[in-house]
Amino acid sequence: MTKPAPDDELVFLPLGGSGEIGMNLNAYGYGPPDARQWIVVDIGVTFGREDATPGIDLILPDPSYLEEVRDNILGIVLTHAHEDHIGALGWLWPRLKAPCYATPFTAALIREKLREHGLLEKVPLTEIPLKGKLTLGPFDIDFVTLTHSIPEPNGLAIRTPLGLIWHTGDWKIDPDPLIGETTDVAKLQAMAEEGILAMVCDSTNVFVEGSTGSESDVRKKLTEVIAQCTGRVAVTAFASNVARVETALHAARAAGRTPCLVGRSMHRIYHAAKSVGLLQNSPPVIDEEDAGSLPDEKVLFLCTGSQGEARAALSRIARGDHRNVSLRQGDTVIFSSRVIPGNEAAIHALYEAFLGRGVELITADDHHIHVSGHPARDELKQMYQWARPRIAIPVHGEMRHIREHVKLAQALQVPETIAPNNGDMIRLAPGPVALIDEVPAGRLYVDGSVIIETEDDAIKDRRRLAAEGAVNIALAVGAKNVILAGPNVSVRGLTMPDEDDLELALEELERTAEAAFAKLSHADRGDDDAIEGAVMRSVRKAAEKLWRKRPLVDVSVLRL
Amino acid sequence: MTKPAPDDELVFLPLGGSGEIGMNLNAYGYGPPDARQWIVVDIGVTFGREDATPGIDLILPDPSYLEEVRDNILGIVLTHAHEDHIGALGWLWPRLKAPCYATPFTAALIREKLREHGLLEKVPLTEIPLKGKLTLGPFDIDFVTLTHSIPEPNGLAIRTPLGLIWHTGDWKIDPDPLIGETTDVAKLQAMAEEGILAMVCDSTNVFVEGSTGSESDVRKKLTEVIAQCTGRVAVTAFASNVARVETALHAARAAGRTPCLVGRSMHRIYHAAKSVGLLQNSPPVIDEEDAGSLPDEKVLFLCTGSQGEARAALSRIARGDHRNVSLRQGDTVIFSSRVIPGNEAAIHALYEAFLGRGVELITADDHHIHVSGHPARDELKQMYQWARPRIAIPVHGEMRHIREHVKLAQALQVPETIAPNNGDMIRLAPGPVALIDEVPAGRLYVDGSVIIETEDDAIKDRRRLAAEGAVNIALAVGAKNVILAGPNVSVRGLTMPDEDDLELALEELERTAEAAFAKLSHADRGDDDAIEGAVMRSVRKAAEKLWRKRPLVDVSVLRL
Repeated sequence: MTKPAPDDELVFLPLGGSGEIGMNLNAYGYGPPDARQWIVVDIGVTFGREDATPGIDLILPDPSYLEEVRDNILGIVLTHAHEDHIGALGWLWPRLKAPCYATPFTAALIREKLREHGLLEKVPLTEIPLKGKLTLGPFDIDFVTLTHSIPEPNGLAIRTPLGLIWHTGDWKIDPDPLIGETTDVAKLQAMAEEGILAMVCDSTNVFVEGSTGSESDVRKKLTEVIAQCTGRVAVTAFASNVARVETALHAARAAGRTPCLVGRSMHRIYHAAKSVGLLQNSPPVIDEEDAGSLPDEKVLFLCTGSQGEARAALSRIARGDHRNVSLRQGDTVIFSSRVIPGNEAAIHALYEAFLGRGVELITADDHHIHVSGHPARDELKQMYQWARPRIAIPVHGEMRHIREHVKLAQALQVPETIAPNNGDMIRLAPGPVALIDEVPAGRLYVDGSVIIETEDDAIKDRRRLAAEGAVNIALAVGAKNVILAGPNVSVRGLTMPDEDDLELALEELERTAEAAFAKLSHADRGDDDAIEGAVMRSVRKAAEKLWRKRPLVDVSVLRL
Repeated sequence: MTKPAPDDELVFLPLGGSGEIGMNLNAYGYGPPDARQWIVVDIGVTFGREDATPGIDLILPDPSYLEEVRDNILGIVLTHAHEDHIGALGWLWPRLKAPCYATPFTAALIREKLREHGLLEKVPLTEIPLKGKLTLGPFDIDFVTLTHSIPEPNGLAIRTPLGLIWHTGDWKIDPDPLIGETTDVAKLQAMAEEGILAMVCDSTNVFVEGSTGSESDVRKKLTEVIAQCTGRVAVTAFASNVARVETALHAARAAGRTPCLVGRSMHRIYHAAKSVGLLQNSPPVIDEEDAGSLPDEKVLFLCTGSQGEARAALSRIARGDHRNVSLRQGDTVIFSSRVIPGNEAAIHALYEAFLGRGVELITADDHHIHVSGHPARDELKQMYQWARPRIAIPVHGEMRHIREHVKLAQALQVPETIAPNNGDMIRLAPGPVALIDEVPAGRLYVDGSVIIETEDDAIKDRRRLAAEGAVNIALAVGAKNVILAGPNVSVRGLTMPDEDDLELALEELERTAEAAFAKLSHADRGDDDAIEGAVMRSVRKAAEKLWRKRPLVDVSVLRL
């Protein structure tokens, strides 16, 4: 490896995932401050919640800083295939246009995303084998095998002339992950011998004592639980946890049930897994359409929707409006999943809907049928013992997780620690770790087909429409500045306990609009903006009296 | 007590709180099926969540069945002053018009509510002393002192010619509740001797093992924690937990800090408590406006907003826009509260906002500074041992709580159990417990100043506006059925990445509207509904292409 030039610096720049769980976007820069070369590690999404962000399915990290330096981005390296690590690639690649690198399973899912965005032919995507290597300018990268809740979780050993960074990505220590190898401890120990300058590490479960537990424990328990079920059985789990999917398929076979995949992402991941040689010993699955012909005791549905997502398979089944799958008294739904914070209300509503149908529920609350993919405290301690970094940089967490992780690292006597926020430019070398700059960071919304800012007026208006409703007014004004027709008034999202009251309210708003026009000077009547402003203000005031609400008022003046 | 007539039945009818936590409304009926006399027990609200039900602050139980029988309602008995037990009185009393009964502290808070609704002079409200009695037709009611998280929690022993009902209300077993007496065990044992036909019982914490713990433990711990704080301290807790408020006041004094109440309901409850003789030994509180002059180490703010409510004191402080209170690096916020399911996201956002300001957080996650007001399993078992009812009827819970509570009662060998849903008319006697009818039950929304149905079109429209936005179109059509002005098109909640794109989109919608008009037959052009329908459909389709969204389209035709 070349020696560093006197001006060279090594910097870390988190742009997503530090201050929130989800939506990871990290960058490493090397070189003199005015000519840094960059690699990007992961580029994920977070999901909008129907209630909190209506109309917004996806939330992206704001890549504007990287866009500015895009000519110096050497590559985008994806650690694993979870949506919070690869989900933004299709949306944001056109702004960055750098070549992409990933291991085979991750690459298979990325290709699918790129195909949806019409980018498959445009994006240079290189497959790196497990435990493979990659050199991008001053960055020598080793892919290090870890365990997580998806196939092919990789940490990155990033060697630079100024030191070795250990970027963990998402991980846990699963002694028996069922799919893939166990944690490459020998490699970690060798890296520690070499000397790790900085470890950039997952903080998700820093508040969880002990260890996470193994997928193999879940296999044992889930197989038992399913064997004891009568009636139909539906299991819900994250599709991307292929080991868990395999567990469900094996448990179905053991219980004499034919498995049936339900939900788009279940099929998507199943096929991606097959394409890279996974799930070879699993029983064949049956189509939804054909599952109806099986006796209740002979079928197991493996469904998407463990988080209560309204449009996912499980919610449809709970509502009784799934095309091919129905559950009733005597059937069982098994949640082999956790409750992601923020989804509690939706998931509880799902529970209640199934209970209302007389369906039995089995959850991880009282059965050991789920384990997390992220390291609990004992695993974090083990990782620090293996890696012995000079600097600890917790990422992948809300601020409270990151702060707690810093405290843990300090307790473990890591010499230097820093709690990063998205947008913090952190110098790792030379000299002690330091915050040297802050760059723009934030979120973008995918709103239908367009990407918009979170504080776009459109979003503010929608929020207001949701709470306060709308009043729409149209009036035609003639050349002599008199009203020739209207004002027509309609309301949306506003009502009265009965029709007559509503009628009276609309009449009152009409009178208010007329009066506002009548009060204008002759000059103002010739000015559409003046008319719209005056009518808007008067009508809003009247609406406030009628409903104790402040609706959006839209006034349209038609000139004749 | 008179003997029952041959036709007499005793029925229980939950109309709120069975199938949800919050919004309690229960009724007991006695007499022949065609001439039952009723008492109503509690009439509470639940709170709308800004994200789930925008514009809706309060949710009420639908009282329409009780409205039908209101001439036979003998009284409304309120067990305690929590909003989920009394909060709907001001809104729904005009539909029921029955006299009300409550103990002094509850009555003080009810009077305030009635005053706000202009009902203070209209509602007959009788104060019943603690451990007092009340006879309403065939119902002889004893108020039984329990412990909970508010002063004066009462269970009701409801004696009828067909048996004794033990309606627990909300309770726990607090051996040292700090305010009020301990659970009246002697009374419970005497009732058991007499024979309890049915126990209608709180299910909130049926999934919680062990016992809840005492307010006095919290006092000890919170006093310790506050003594160790440096800088400013803010404590948040439910204002209605007067024992907790007293704890904060005493702990402030012990730490040499002057307490300051922040938030409307904190003041409201403080004064109600004072008015019934509570909080007599607490230190005086200082006004918000004057707290700024105290050194940081000499003040303790007692704040509303533990659930992350956007408009409450704590959220304002976190955002840095509270008029009188600010917190910064070195200050501490203490959450002496729990996370109510559904509020996780809002509360975590609040945590993050404080951490972002460098404020330390202390929560019940790692310090014993909160206890629940509801019975955990060991307390439920104790209650069943005391009461030994013939029938167990779990209420005050989601279906999963109620089902689990039924299982618990069965395990405790209660002879009969039933899991009620809101609207289930349950016969308690004569004969075995039975579901004999189902009546309308549900929710109503308080929307600004009006009460509306949850599935009102206004609500559906608002939900759609929130996700999809709106397109408003106005056009003026002359006597000859040609467009004289417009179409004017405006959008709300829809945007494009740049101004020019948005301009082009609006032009496209205008052309679409014109084309839709042009395609109409001459007859249809004379029909405003036909024009509106055709334009609406075409514009919606065009909008879907432009944005992949289905906005609400409002078309206004002005006739000249």
